[in-house]
Amino acid sequence: MVKVSKGNLLSAKGYTIHYGNVYEADGELLDQVLVSVFRSPRSYTGEDSVEISTHASRYIVQRLVELLLASGARFAQPGEFTRRAFLNGKMDLAQAESVADVISSTTEAAHHIAMSQFRGGFSKELEALRGRLLEMASLLELELDFSEEEVEFAKRDQLLELVEATLSQVNSLADSFHQGDMIKNGVPVAIVGVANAGKSSLLNALLGDDRAIVSAIPGTTRDTVEEVAVLDGVAFRFIDTAGLRDSSDTVEKLGIERSYRKLSSAEIVLGVLDFASDSLSLQQQVSQILSGVDTRSQKLVFVLSKADLLDENEVNKNVTNINNFVSYADIKADIIAISSKSSESVNELKKRLSSIEKSLISNAASSLVTNIRHYEALRNAASALSEVKVSLSANVPGDLVAEDLRRALSFINSILGKDLGLDPETILHHIFKNHCIGK
Amino acid sequence: MVKVSKGNLLSAKGYTIHYGNVYEADGELLDQVLVSVFRSPRSYTGEDSVEISTHASRYIVQRLVELLLASGARFAQPGEFTRRAFLNGKMDLAQAESVADVISSTTEAAHHIAMSQFRGGFSKELEALRGRLLEMASLLELELDFSEEEVEFAKRDQLLELVEATLSQVNSLADSFHQGDMIKNGVPVAIVGVANAGKSSLLNALLGDDRAIVSAIPGTTRDTVEEVAVLDGVAFRFIDTAGLRDSSDTVEKLGIERSYRKLSSAEIVLGVLDFASDSLSLQQQVSQILSGVDTRSQKLVFVLSKADLLDENEVNKNVTNINNFVSYADIKADIIAISSKSSESVNELKKRLSSIEKSLISNAASSLVTNIRHYEALRNAASALSEVKVSLSANVPGDLVAEDLRRALSFINSILGKDLGLDPETILHHIFKNHCIGK
Repeated sequence: MVKVSKGNLLSAKGYTIHYGNVYEADGELLDQVLVSVFRSPRSYTGEDSVEISTHASRYIVQRLVELLLASGARFAQPGEFTRRAFLNGKMDLAQAESVADVISSTTEAAHHIAMSQFRGGFSKELEALRGRLLEMASLLELELDFSEEEVEFAKRDQLLELVEATLSQVNSLADSFHQGDMIKNGVPVAIVGVANAGKSSLLNALLGDDRAIVSAIPGTTRDTVEEVAVLDGVAFRFIDTAGLRDSSDTVEKLGIERSYRKLSSAEIVLGVLDFASDSLSLQQQVSQILSGVDTRSQKLVFVLSKADLLDENEVNKNVTNINNFVSYADIKADIIAISSKSSESVNELKKRLSSIEKSLISNAASSLVTNIRHYEALRNAASALSEVKVSLSANVPGDLVAEDLRRALSFINSILGKDLGLDPETILHHIFKNHCIGK
Repeated sequence: MVKVSKGNLLSAKGYTIHYGNVYEADGELLDQVLVSVFRSPRSYTGEDSVEISTHASRYIVQRLVELLLASGARFAQPGEFTRRAFLNGKMDLAQAESVADVISSTTEAAHHIAMSQFRGGFSKELEALRGRLLEMASLLELELDFSEEEVEFAKRDQLLELVEATLSQVNSLADSFHQGDMIKNGVPVAIVGVANAGKSSLLNALLGDDRAIVSAIPGTTRDTVEEVAVLDGVAFRFIDTAGLRDSSDTVEKLGIERSYRKLSSAEIVLGVLDFASDSLSLQQQVSQILSGVDTRSQKLVFVLSKADLLDENEVNKNVTNINNFVSYADIKADIIAISSKSSESVNELKKRLSSIEKSLISNAASSLVTNIRHYEALRNAASALSEVKVSLSANVPGDLVAEDLRRALSFINSILGKDLGLDPETILHHIFKNHCIGK
């Protein structure tokens, strides 16, 4: 039972704090607490709510929870507060989804995107899109009412122009997911090379003390060998692959295929070369890595490992050889010699990674999409708009064009939570199930 | 920079909450926050203070701290808030010290003691003691002013009676430390037996899932092999000792001596007996354990380990043999057969431990001392009072008696923080250095 020092909590005004005692059923004092009162609609959820601050004792918190449960309270579901805030109209669905991102952001860039989405920047852009789609659809539908008079409220060529502009905006938003995902979840960096080339040592050296700030990203399932680290304020997602090598063993071949597939999902590939390998020469290793990398879309950095075992001349000779071979193959790739034991050479590699990242991420002024649900909805909207475009060019009747426009509209609406289809409960459950409890 | 949605934080009243924004220096929004305002003297420290609640993002919290530091704030020292509360007269020193105990309590009993001390229950008892000591000293000192008239304000026999009553109260408080410490830090249970008798398995089985709630107790350094677990709401401190066995090896002998010393600090001894030992028979193992246990002051439970390797008849035969041997030696000891793999037998042992604990801890109505600083001060006060007693019986002049009374008084004062001697800063530093930061 909670008793405040004076007055009555039930009649307390919002945005006030109350000092009081929490008692056990037998009258024993459990703790002296502060109760913060929030009144509808000026609260996070929009409903009346209280927050109880106790001393930071596990025993007290556990007992208080037991007392509250015994008094009829129940635990919140994951994301339930934010879900209620959405259902009570305090924020749209895109804003509600951004709360988890605001909480899990580990870099300034990711925080910036999440905060902008939370404040409704992204929603405002979508609202503008919505308005335009709605207007076009309405005009086409108006024609139906006057169908016998053959009125054309919406000039077809103007409409086509507008649809193309809208489609281009939707496409550009959808395309921003590539960058948004990199900023939110880290730039994917694959580490490849023959077995024992020093891939794991390299990963450990790169992660170093930053391993501590590796974060779990809610709502994503990643391969367990991926590790996220923030280097110089930028999140990288390191993908350690199995060793590559020629093999006739079927099981091993499967492992190698997996490595190649992972390779293809990386933005940056670190090809680790081992001069001391007894299975493949350096040149063979370079060839093998090149066969799995698309150097038009992926950045490749060769890492000559174990450089501490060679003298400077030998290192330089090897680097020159690799350089020549790569140039001969007409391929763009960085080459760096690394000793995992030397923090200097590891820092040099980190610098290269940072500068590559800067070339990958352009500072787009418009909103970046970071949520795969939004990305899919935008892709669907784009596909509906493409059909509108075709229909308009083919002089398809207005009512059919309007139908496609409405379909595009419903995808945009679904991002904002205005139109969740036939089973909104399932969609909301899916969206909030990975949010934190208590938020 | 923090900007609240309306009004000015500087003029905000205490016990109010303010919604607002925190901005980076470049005007970028860092977060939307709630700021709770407390006004002197109605705050924890007694000073004006604010608490800022952000979204639970590590990035936001880190940046906010950086912004606050850049604006001239600094990190609090461990226990600084509580220390300020003491220095500002919001609580006495015994209450301030209890804050760390309130936070670290893991059982109802420990919480109860800490809470009672926090609310001033212990202080009230000390204040009553103080008053009595002060009155006695004052009366004796008054005599000095009238020394030429040979007045005796304080009748010597009445004074002696009063001193004896006070001494007995101080002693009883000091004696309560034994129980208080057990409740606060756990009942010490030593686990002994020959090497490979199954001591570690027994410990693991006892700790089981409760290992998760093992807690670090601030301000105490314990041997690393000690583990605290809460079984059935009671804290036990398990002390795993090295294996006991006869040895001529000097180094090993030292280890065994250490085991015996640890044994003597335990309230409960679990003597693990291994029927399968190839070095000592069961009877030899019993003898060896008995040689290290003081069965007048320590509770002894023999645990026949690896019972799952025997059939029921063999178990019973062994238990009977041990029982007979122990009875023959005229010693009180429990005997229980255990298979670390059977949760049933482990639970049976837990029950025995609980029932022994109940016999050790009497529900004393008066305050229990749990703080070793208080214990030492009480012991010192008792020693000063004993001297007063001797002096009074020996008709020592009143001013000398008063001096001893004043000394006893200063020890009681030191508990309450009213008289911290010549170097209060060092004493306060020592007291608060193990408190949490932020409390």
